[in-house]
Amino acid sequence: MKKLLNDPQDAVAESLEGFGLAHADLVEVHLDPPYVTRAGEVTRGKVGLVSGGGAGHEPLHAGFVGTGMLDAAVPGPVFTSPTPDQVLPAILAADGGAGVLTIVKNYTGDVLNFETAVELAEAEDVQVASVLVNDDVAVEDSLYTAGRRGVAGTVCVEKIAGAAAERGDDLAAVTRVAEKVVANVRSMGVALTACTVPHVGKPSFDLPDDEIEIGIGIHGEPGRHRVPLAAADDVTRMLLDPVADDLGISDGDDVLLFVNGMGGTPSSELYVVYRQARRLLEARGASVARSLVGNYVTSLEMQGASITVLRLDDELTTLWDEPVHTAALRW
Amino acid sequence: MKKLLNDPQDAVAESLEGFGLAHADLVEVHLDPPYVTRAGEVTRGKVGLVSGGGAGHEPLHAGFVGTGMLDAAVPGPVFTSPTPDQVLPAILAADGGAGVLTIVKNYTGDVLNFETAVELAEAEDVQVASVLVNDDVAVEDSLYTAGRRGVAGTVCVEKIAGAAAERGDDLAAVTRVAEKVVANVRSMGVALTACTVPHVGKPSFDLPDDEIEIGIGIHGEPGRHRVPLAAADDVTRMLLDPVADDLGISDGDDVLLFVNGMGGTPSSELYVVYRQARRLLEARGASVARSLVGNYVTSLEMQGASITVLRLDDELTTLWDEPVHTAALRW
Repeated sequence: MKKLLNDPQDAVAESLEGFGLAHADLVEVHLDPPYVTRAGEVTRGKVGLVSGGGAGHEPLHAGFVGTGMLDAAVPGPVFTSPTPDQVLPAILAADGGAGVLTIVKNYTGDVLNFETAVELAEAEDVQVASVLVNDDVAVEDSLYTAGRRGVAGTVCVEKIAGAAAERGDDLAAVTRVAEKVVANVRSMGVALTACTVPHVGKPSFDLPDDEIEIGIGIHGEPGRHRVPLAAADDVTRMLLDPVADDLGISDGDDVLLFVNGMGGTPSSELYVVYRQARRLLEARGASVARSLVGNYVTSLEMQGASITVLRLDDELTTLWDEPVHTAALRW
Repeated sequence: MKKLLNDPQDAVAESLEGFGLAHADLVEVHLDPPYVTRAGEVTRGKVGLVSGGGAGHEPLHAGFVGTGMLDAAVPGPVFTSPTPDQVLPAILAADGGAGVLTIVKNYTGDVLNFETAVELAEAEDVQVASVLVNDDVAVEDSLYTAGRRGVAGTVCVEKIAGAAAERGDDLAAVTRVAEKVVANVRSMGVALTACTVPHVGKPSFDLPDDEIEIGIGIHGEPGRHRVPLAAADDVTRMLLDPVADDLGISDGDDVLLFVNGMGGTPSSELYVVYRQARRLLEARGASVARSLVGNYVTSLEMQGASITVLRLDDELTTLWDEPVHTAALRW
């Protein structure tokens, strides 16, 4: 295993510590237990947004803590859910008196641990709502999930719900818009290589030199099928078609097209995928009104990409365009 | 070779095309010959900034075209200098009547081809100045260079000179500040893995599973020495010490610390490197006043990182903090 790490057991804590030092103007990193909050005082009267999940998907979630997006993020160990005793202080810290929305990717461990933390927070008189992200069209149930998995579409939920909270929407309104994003966002990914969890020390799965895995999960869990390595335009079609079909994309739709890197793929390749995905959407009569290309929901050093499509309306477009100031997303 | 590409010969053009579609609000992509300019009309009376070099280092340079940074970028084929007939139209397009500064990384091919293009532009009555970036302390001469190579410090030159041009400094003043950055910025990198040039199809060099290359060039050209794979804190020291020694960093210095990913390394590892590099600088009595962590000057999918230190003064800090709006750098 070749990584720029010290003791693999310390990887998440040391990385968080560096992240906190580099972005001290934006975030405060807590290490015992580990969670990340916005720097400074909580905003009174604003709905708080909390997300979290296993580490290894950076910049998700800590990279999205800041004005216009999350109030707190809770990283577990690599590819492992954070515990309720990590999530609880994050919820309490994010509460400015207007309640908290937790945004949870649909993995059984995350769902259970967030539920427990929410119960504990409610026992402390914090009002909490939750939204479950399940945008991955690749498989219905998986190794770690009942129902569809939550993947890169989570970025869209966090950005848009974050903008709604920032402008002063109440908990019911922020929850409604988060659920609207979930209802209109779909994703699918491909792996060219496996990744190696630091404390495991060997690749999570074997992928022959001439095969790729279509519909891969962000923890390297199996997708739909393995196919021979193909041209980028063909691979892009294998991802985009199921996404657009599931969303029912048709003539006149405005969409956000998000091409996400899995961590080890150069951005030059992501733009090749973007080019073809855009063409395929336009061939369906859709208009790509907003775009995002880069490494936002990764799987350590995995080579590969995912395609996310969000069907836009005026409300979602307006909220997407609102200012955001986080370590990983800023405009 | 596992990449998300179509015909490797089309990789640069297709990627540029996708880049132009995704960022049409910021840039205009020209494909014959390939160069990238800011979207819209040139700013009359502003010094134009042009940079370029081989592709494969994205987001360098096209990702830095926009307000507060470059006016045009010229990508050659992967790891190959752009030709004078690409550089010339970029210079002409960037000229708003106040002259053009070209920012060239010190590689023999880039230097020669930019020189030729500058002569051709001057023949068309454009006033051109040039600055050479040579921040890599690893080796004095290399496979492609007489003198030190230009690497990630280029981002600092482009950002700070870009801010000076944007506020209306004249060509002599912008050139002076660019040279001041060059005089105060140093870098050194490490490779954990090799990378594969698309049209070559096999890794540029062999690196055993238990070795890393200290002082690697951004084209995979040899560095100072190979050493056994070591802990991140030790590797960081091997990079930071030569950089800080060469700069003569000492008690009371304010610095910008820039940890750059080579393309295939997850950001979580870059923050582990950042943490230790910052400690080492602070142990020398320096204060890390500004930070940048991420993939900005890459070598395709290479795993590895580089450390860049820029000694700051009030002028450089002020210009660094000025707004920038490009695809890859924005605040």
